[in-house]
Amino acid sequence: MGIKETRITSPAYFVGVDGDNIISFGSGQPDLPPPKDIFKDIATPRLFKYGLIKGEIKLREALSKQYPGANAEDFVITNGASEAIDLVFRSIHEMHGRVKVLLCRPYYYSYPPIVEFAGLEPVYTDLKDGRIDIADFEKKIKHVKAVLINSPSNPTGRVEDTGTLRAIEKITSKLGVYVISDEVYKDLIYERENYLIKGKRVITINSFSKTYSLCGLRVGYIYARDPEIIEGAVNLKVHTSMNTNILGQEMALRAMKVPKSFVTGQTAIWKERRDYIYGGLSAMGFNLWKPEGAFYVLPKIKNSGRVVNDLYYKHKVIVYDGAWFDAPGRIRLSYALELPKIKEGLSRISKYLNGKGSWLR
Amino acid sequence: MGIKETRITSPAYFVGVDGDNIISFGSGQPDLPPPKDIFKDIATPRLFKYGLIKGEIKLREALSKQYPGANAEDFVITNGASEAIDLVFRSIHEMHGRVKVLLCRPYYYSYPPIVEFAGLEPVYTDLKDGRIDIADFEKKIKHVKAVLINSPSNPTGRVEDTGTLRAIEKITSKLGVYVISDEVYKDLIYERENYLIKGKRVITINSFSKTYSLCGLRVGYIYARDPEIIEGAVNLKVHTSMNTNILGQEMALRAMKVPKSFVTGQTAIWKERRDYIYGGLSAMGFNLWKPEGAFYVLPKIKNSGRVVNDLYYKHKVIVYDGAWFDAPGRIRLSYALELPKIKEGLSRISKYLNGKGSWLR
Repeated sequence: MGIKETRITSPAYFVGVDGDNIISFGSGQPDLPPPKDIFKDIATPRLFKYGLIKGEIKLREALSKQYPGANAEDFVITNGASEAIDLVFRSIHEMHGRVKVLLCRPYYYSYPPIVEFAGLEPVYTDLKDGRIDIADFEKKIKHVKAVLINSPSNPTGRVEDTGTLRAIEKITSKLGVYVISDEVYKDLIYERENYLIKGKRVITINSFSKTYSLCGLRVGYIYARDPEIIEGAVNLKVHTSMNTNILGQEMALRAMKVPKSFVTGQTAIWKERRDYIYGGLSAMGFNLWKPEGAFYVLPKIKNSGRVVNDLYYKHKVIVYDGAWFDAPGRIRLSYALELPKIKEGLSRISKYLNGKGSWLR
Repeated sequence: MGIKETRITSPAYFVGVDGDNIISFGSGQPDLPPPKDIFKDIATPRLFKYGLIKGEIKLREALSKQYPGANAEDFVITNGASEAIDLVFRSIHEMHGRVKVLLCRPYYYSYPPIVEFAGLEPVYTDLKDGRIDIADFEKKIKHVKAVLINSPSNPTGRVEDTGTLRAIEKITSKLGVYVISDEVYKDLIYERENYLIKGKRVITINSFSKTYSLCGLRVGYIYARDPEIIEGAVNLKVHTSMNTNILGQEMALRAMKVPKSFVTGQTAIWKERRDYIYGGLSAMGFNLWKPEGAFYVLPKIKNSGRVVNDLYYKHKVIVYDGAWFDAPGRIRLSYALELPKIKEGLSRISKYLNGKGSWLR
């Protein structure tokens, strides 16, 4: 096949791998195009000058209208959700020193390093059937200064019950624990509306990447009612990266102005794909949760490391090892690709699994 | 004047302050427009997808041709020079823990916080007449793991002698000390060519902001021959911000392709402004260095804090307090604005100083 075989040990291996009849269930990136209306008349010098560290006022005003009771001053526009999370944890470190942060396991693979790079200590609560185990959560939360919630979740595709989120609101508020709520998939929920976690110590993280297919522009934001967190993030960002790229902010603002049907139309497409891949994998005998949000499935499989290597080298199919998300014995498939490709990918997986039925049990 | 008077204590006060007949010698941002050729045909989905964490290969290849012996793999494209410096110091912290970093004083005001946020400890060598005092440097360098050099310098406008830079190369190489060389003004030297500091432990920082008037896009880079530094920066960036905005990278690449005359034409404009402001301030009786690079002057003045406040509130002229750069008893003026505005600004300053001649001595 011309591809040199090296043992694949992290998602980094697949970055930039493309073309040549490869079907990728790897990266969590929408294949859909961004709204057309965002491209007009960008050749104005205004879009190439330094801007406010917090972000463009018009964009923050538009965002504030999406959150009940919010003010433009409660937002910081960042280089994607990644920088938003990084700034929040670094701010917490500046204020409180080396404190503990509760993470749910399995997790998005950037969470533990981002917490550690900020000088904080990650501790874990194991998800039960892909959702927060509130009994374990209530035990662990007493010993931490902050908790990171990600619903809809990457990699599980699960959405937390509103009851669970309300219970988390209550106990964290009582204990004065920061809740960092990474809601980058909030517009990709198939089952119900997103429940926005609220509170004095709640820090909402979001981005324009998934909703508007603007991943490469890197525009995200922090929303917090606690001025200390906003100020802490700005105090860092003024030195560590300055304003978020102005052109990206302008395009994000324009994207927010396109009709709602852009987003709802996309959700319909995601749902169709969700149904297809869930049905296909179930029919093959996989044991998996039906995704309620985001665009990931996390089916069980034995020898997941070998599966990732075999599928890539022998069948040109990219899937991620669950172990990279601390979900051993599973693989993660992103279904952010068009139906015919999903179909072809599943057919190759089916071919590969022929005679390996015991791996799915 | 309608402006509410608050004591001005940092450059943050002036961010976004504009218009209304204000003359700003504040922010270090070119007023010149970016090259026209960078705006064509950007409405392609490719420019909105995730990219390599290191940066687009074509941009890194183009950069590698500017540095003798360099390879595309020696570069990481970042959210401006700020993120480049942040990633380098955080990498050094990951590798070596809480080590010391030597900074030259006066300094660009982000340097001390960026070093401290990364968990490192800044120590200082005082510039002598705006340039590195090699005797003091050689004493201090023995006790640090890294040193940050900025030539041409913000805020002094000085360019270090080639002899000094060669001596720094030699001693740091002998001691195994990292040299972080922030060369964002390297294309804005009026007196001679830039001397590129070289070596195994040298880390060059640069950006497209000043040369191509692309400040708001936030595209900069790290260039290092030490693969540990490159790998360290990428290992952080994959989690803390992911790829630098792709559209900005594409525009930076296009900017690099415009004829050399774009840059040389700009330098001629900067030089004309430099001569004008240097002449004007000298004629008023100010004691200042003639800028050799960048676009700043740092004249002496007593009561610099009061001067900053008075000039803004009474004369609508923005200048920065030297104290913000640890250059007490001076003010910093950026001359990144057109000649008629410089002229008007100087005339207002002259009016303000009437009867205050003793402040300049």
